[in-house]
Amino acid sequence: MIKKTTFAAFCFAGLLPIASAKTLSIADFGAKPGGPDTIPALKQALAAIKKEQATKLIFPSGTYHFFPDYADERYCFISNNDEGLKRIAFNLKDFENLEIDGNGSLFMFHGKINPVILEGSSNIRLKNFAIDFKRSFHSEGVIVADPEEGLDLRIDPTVFPYEIAGGILTFTDGDQTEERKTTTKSKKITFPYGGGLEFDPEKKEPAYLARDLWVGPAAIAKPLGDGVIRIMDPKLTGTPGNIFIFGPSHREHPGIVISRSQDTVIEDITIHHAAGMALIAQLSHNVQILRMKTGAREGSGRLLSATADATHFSNCTGKIEIGYCNFQVQKDDPSNLHGLYARISAQEDDKTFVIEMIHPQQYGIDFVDPNDELEFVNSRSLVTYGTGKVASVERINKQLTRVVMTEAVPKDFKVGDAIAEIRDYPEIHIHNCRMHGNRARGLLLNCRGKTLIEDNHFHVPGTAILFESDASFWYEQGGVRDCTIRGNVFENGNFGPLEWGTGVIEVRAGIEDEFKPSSRYNQNITIEDNTFILFDRNAVVRTFSVDGLTIRNNTIIYSEAYPNRGLKDELFDISYSDNVVIENNKVQELPENLTE
Amino acid sequence: MIKKTTFAAFCFAGLLPIASAKTLSIADFGAKPGGPDTIPALKQALAAIKKEQATKLIFPSGTYHFFPDYADERYCFISNNDEGLKRIAFNLKDFENLEIDGNGSLFMFHGKINPVILEGSSNIRLKNFAIDFKRSFHSEGVIVADPEEGLDLRIDPTVFPYEIAGGILTFTDGDQTEERKTTTKSKKITFPYGGGLEFDPEKKEPAYLARDLWVGPAAIAKPLGDGVIRIMDPKLTGTPGNIFIFGPSHREHPGIVISRSQDTVIEDITIHHAAGMALIAQLSHNVQILRMKTGAREGSGRLLSATADATHFSNCTGKIEIGYCNFQVQKDDPSNLHGLYARISAQEDDKTFVIEMIHPQQYGIDFVDPNDELEFVNSRSLVTYGTGKVASVERINKQLTRVVMTEAVPKDFKVGDAIAEIRDYPEIHIHNCRMHGNRARGLLLNCRGKTLIEDNHFHVPGTAILFESDASFWYEQGGVRDCTIRGNVFENGNFGPLEWGTGVIEVRAGIEDEFKPSSRYNQNITIEDNTFILFDRNAVVRTFSVDGLTIRNNTIIYSEAYPNRGLKDELFDISYSDNVVIENNKVQELPENLTE
Repeated sequence: MIKKTTFAAFCFAGLLPIASAKTLSIADFGAKPGGPDTIPALKQALAAIKKEQATKLIFPSGTYHFFPDYADERYCFISNNDEGLKRIAFNLKDFENLEIDGNGSLFMFHGKINPVILEGSSNIRLKNFAIDFKRSFHSEGVIVADPEEGLDLRIDPTVFPYEIAGGILTFTDGDQTEERKTTTKSKKITFPYGGGLEFDPEKKEPAYLARDLWVGPAAIAKPLGDGVIRIMDPKLTGTPGNIFIFGPSHREHPGIVISRSQDTVIEDITIHHAAGMALIAQLSHNVQILRMKTGAREGSGRLLSATADATHFSNCTGKIEIGYCNFQVQKDDPSNLHGLYARISAQEDDKTFVIEMIHPQQYGIDFVDPNDELEFVNSRSLVTYGTGKVASVERINKQLTRVVMTEAVPKDFKVGDAIAEIRDYPEIHIHNCRMHGNRARGLLLNCRGKTLIEDNHFHVPGTAILFESDASFWYEQGGVRDCTIRGNVFENGNFGPLEWGTGVIEVRAGIEDEFKPSSRYNQNITIEDNTFILFDRNAVVRTFSVDGLTIRNNTIIYSEAYPNRGLKDELFDISYSDNVVIENNKVQELPENLTE
Repeated sequence: MIKKTTFAAFCFAGLLPIASAKTLSIADFGAKPGGPDTIPALKQALAAIKKEQATKLIFPSGTYHFFPDYADERYCFISNNDEGLKRIAFNLKDFENLEIDGNGSLFMFHGKINPVILEGSSNIRLKNFAIDFKRSFHSEGVIVADPEEGLDLRIDPTVFPYEIAGGILTFTDGDQTEERKTTTKSKKITFPYGGGLEFDPEKKEPAYLARDLWVGPAAIAKPLGDGVIRIMDPKLTGTPGNIFIFGPSHREHPGIVISRSQDTVIEDITIHHAAGMALIAQLSHNVQILRMKTGAREGSGRLLSATADATHFSNCTGKIEIGYCNFQVQKDDPSNLHGLYARISAQEDDKTFVIEMIHPQQYGIDFVDPNDELEFVNSRSLVTYGTGKVASVERINKQLTRVVMTEAVPKDFKVGDAIAEIRDYPEIHIHNCRMHGNRARGLLLNCRGKTLIEDNHFHVPGTAILFESDASFWYEQGGVRDCTIRGNVFENGNFGPLEWGTGVIEVRAGIEDEFKPSSRYNQNITIEDNTFILFDRNAVVRTFSVDGLTIRNNTIIYSEAYPNRGLKDELFDISYSDNVVIENNKVQELPENLTE
C-alpha cells in the first residue's frame, strides 16, 4: 500500500554518527533469551556503559523478560499520559551516544513497569526490538449477543483474566505464580477500565459508527455460563462477532518516553502493546522515527495494540521525522504534535503572574524557564496580545508556577488567558506511513515549523488530518505557518461517529465564534496531489480562520466501502479565510447513492 | 471517667524549652480567621521562620481554611498509610525549635491535602488547634431498612454528596464552586470506598457484633426515592437507626505525620477527621502527646472521626508518652507501637542479601542504614538466630534494598526469614487516656523498651491490649521485655466480632504452633490493680509464649451491658509460658446468665 518513492532525505543535523564504538552485550551480564528477569543484567549493563563510555548495547536475538521487582524507580510526569512513581526497565537518564540494538528481539514486560524512558539524554538510538506486555492493560471480549439490558461477551480468561465479585467485573493478571517463582513476591494486580469501544476483528478497525462507551469505573456483570458474561448496562450495544474493548482507565506505562532529550533515533521498533501511548516525546529536540510499527503480536489473542496514540510530541523542538511507519489498531491517534498552553490563574503585579496547567496529564511538564520568550494569548480567540521575556520562575507545585517577566505584560492580558513558549518550533516530516484502524483521528498538526506530510496512506475513522489547538480544554498549542500535505492517499476514512470529524482534513481550533472572522490562527496550508477516496458526501477540506490555503491537483474518488452516513457536505467548506486557491482538483461525478 | 491522680512525671530529656522566643503571627502575613486560603500566608510565615530563626508561630483564634492549590508538594512514604505525591499545608521539613500555637483555632482542610508533615525536624511543639476536613474522606448513611437483597440507607447529600451513575454509587465533593472562587480552579474529586462498618449512633461505637463488610471498589445502588438508596448486596445487613460507614479505600491524608524527627510535642490538638491515621510517627525519637482528642466535630453531621488509628508509631526510638488523651470513634486502634520486619528475598553471598518490605503501606520506609545492628529472625518462630552489623546498603526501589553485613550471617538464616533493626527501643508511657468506640482493638504493644500503661479507661469492641507482631503478614516487630499494665479500667470491651479478640488482654504473636512451646517472644508482663468489667465469659488474659507474667490485685466485675456472646473461656488462659504468677485477683461470682 505504501509508495516507496524516492524523497528528499530529511537531514538531521543534530544526529551525529556514533563514533568509536565500544560494544557491550547483555549476555556479558548474564542475561539470555528465555531467562527469568533481565532487569538485574540490564542495570549492570547500563552502569557499565556509563563507566566505560560504551556506545552500543546489543541483545542476542530472542525473547527477554522484564519484571518490575528489581527495576529502578523515579517519579515521572509524562505529557498526555499519567504521572507517577514508575518502575523503569530501560532507565536512560543522562546517557549520551548510545545505541541499543535488539537484533529483532522481543522484550516482554510483566506488570507495572515502563519499558523505556529517556530523560536528559542525547544521541540515543534504539533499534530492532519489539515491546509487549504479558498481560495487556486493556481487555477484550467477543460480543455474542446484544440484549436490551446490556451486552453479552465471551472473554478469554487465559488472555484477559477476570473475576466477577459483588456483581462487579474486575480484570486481573490471573495466577502467574509459576512464572514469578524466579523473582521476588509480586502482588496480584487489577486492570481498571474506563472507555469501551467496539472493534471489527475482520477489518481490524473500530466498528462502523462505533463511538466511545463509558464502562468505568465499574461494570455490573453477571455470568451466564459457558464462559459468557452479561454487562448489565442498557446503553451498551454492539454487533455479535465484533470485539468489545475495555480501555484502561490510566495511561501509566507508555512504551517509549523521550523527555528533555536530544537527537533520538527510533528504528525498526514494534510496540505490540503499551498502557498509554506507544511513543511520547516531550520538551525534546530532534526525534527521528523510522519503520516503527504498532500492532498486536500474532498469537497474543489480542486485537488492540497501544491503548492510546502511536506517537505524540509535546512542546518539542528541532526536527521530527516519522517515516515508513505502520500504525495499526491503537486506541488513539497515530500522531499529535503540539505545544503547551498554560492558563493564567492569578496576576500579582504588572510583571508577575501564576500559570496553571489545566489538563491533569500536563501537570508537572515545566516548560517555562528563565530567559524563555513567551507569547500572551487570548484564550477565546487564540490571538496573541504580545510577547515578553521571562526573568524568573518559581515552581509552586505540579500545577502552578509563578512567573516574573522582565517587562510589564500587555494591558489586555488577564486571568483566564494563556501563555505559550515561543520556541524553535519543530520542522516536521511525516512520510510513507500507513495509519490504519485506530480510534479517532489521524495526524493532529499543531506546530509552527515547516510541516510536510507526504506519501502516507490513511484509513482512520475520524478526520485524517486535524488542525486542533485550544486554550480552554486540552490546552494544546498550535497554529501552523507552513504546512504541505501532498501525495497522500486518504482511503475511506470518516467511518466513525460524527464527533470524530466530518471532513478528511479539518481545522477545529478552539476559537470562539465571534473571533472566527478575525482570527487567522492557521496559515499557509497547501493540499496537493492527494487522492481522497470517499464513501459518503463528507467534506474533503473543512476550515475556518486560515490565511493562505491552496487545494490543488487532488483526486476525489467515490467508493461503496461503507454505508453512507447521510451527510450532504460541500467538498471544500472554507469559511473566514484569506488567500484561498482551489484549483485543478479532479472530482469523480457524485454516484447515484449519494445524490439527493 | 479519667482518674486525674498524680503520677510520676515522665521526663523528656530531649525536649528543651524553646528559648529566646521570637514570635510571628499568621496575621502578619495576611491571613485572618474566615479568610479564603491560608496556604500562601502560611508558606510566607514558614519561610520567615527559617530566615529569622523565629521560634513561635501563632494563629489568632478562629477558623482558617487550607486548600491544596498553592500548597507545597512532596512524595511521602508514610508507614501504615498510603504513599504518594502529597500537597502539604504545614510542611515542616528541616525545622528546629518551633512552637505552633493555634489558640484554639479550627484548621479546616479542603480536598486532597495533608494537614501536617514533619520531616527531619527537631524540637517542634504543636498546640491548641483542631483539624477537620470540609468533606470527609469516608461517608455515612442511616440504615432505614434491611431487605433481603441489600441495605437501604438515607445519606445526607449536604454532608456526604453522592451520585448513582451506571448503577454504581460514587461519593463526590458536591458543588463547591462558590467556596472555591477565591482560589484557583479545582477539579471535582471522588471518594472511593472499601471497608464498610455499622455503628451505633447512640452509643457512638461500632454496633454490637458488627464486623467489617467489604463494599468496595464499587457498590451497586439504586435510588428508592425520598433520599433513600438501596445498596444491592445481599451480604450487607444492619439494624435500622444505626449508621453504615463507607470507609475510604485509601489512607492518603493522615492528620499529623512525624517522620525522621526528634523531640516532638503535641498538646491539646483535636483531630475531627483525617483520611488515614490521626497521628503517625515513624523513625522518630521522642514523641510526647498530651490531651489529644479524636472525635467528629459537633454540627458536622458525622459520627466517625479519623478513618484509621488515632496514633501509630513505627520503628521509633527514645520516649513516647501519650497522656490525658481522649480517642473516640476513629476507624481503627487508639495506638499501635511497633518496629518493622523486612523479609529476606534473596541471598547473594554469605554477607549480602536483599530485603523486601512486604506490606504495601511499609514501602519506602527505609529503616536500615550503615552501622545499624540487625537481628536475624526466623519468620515462623520469631526466634532470633543472631545479630550483625550493616556495612552498606543499596536502595533498589521502594520495596527492595540490598544489604551487606560486616560479617557472615548465621547459617540457618534463609530466604523467607526476616531482619529487624536493633534500636533504642522506645520507653512508653500511656496514661490517663480514654479510648472509646473505635473499630477493632485498643493498644497494640510491640516495643522492647519499658512500657507502662496506667490509669486509662478502655471501651473498645475487640481486645483492649494486644501483643501482636509477626514476620509473615503485617511484618510489625514486637516482643515486649518489660511491660506493666496497672490501674486501668477495661469496661465492657469485646462487644465486636470474635475476630477482633476474645480476651481483654491477649498475646497473638505470629508464631507458628510448632514453635509456641519453645518461643518466649514476650517477656515480663505485669498486669495489676486493674478493673475488668465483663458482660461475657471471655478471657481477661489470654497468652502464649511469655516468659514472666504476673497477674495480681485485679478486680473482675460482671455486667449486663450487652447480650453475652456465648463464650465459656477461662478468665486466665495461659499456655507455653514460664514464671507465671496469678494472685490476689478479686473475681465477682459468675452471674446466673453466664453459668452453664
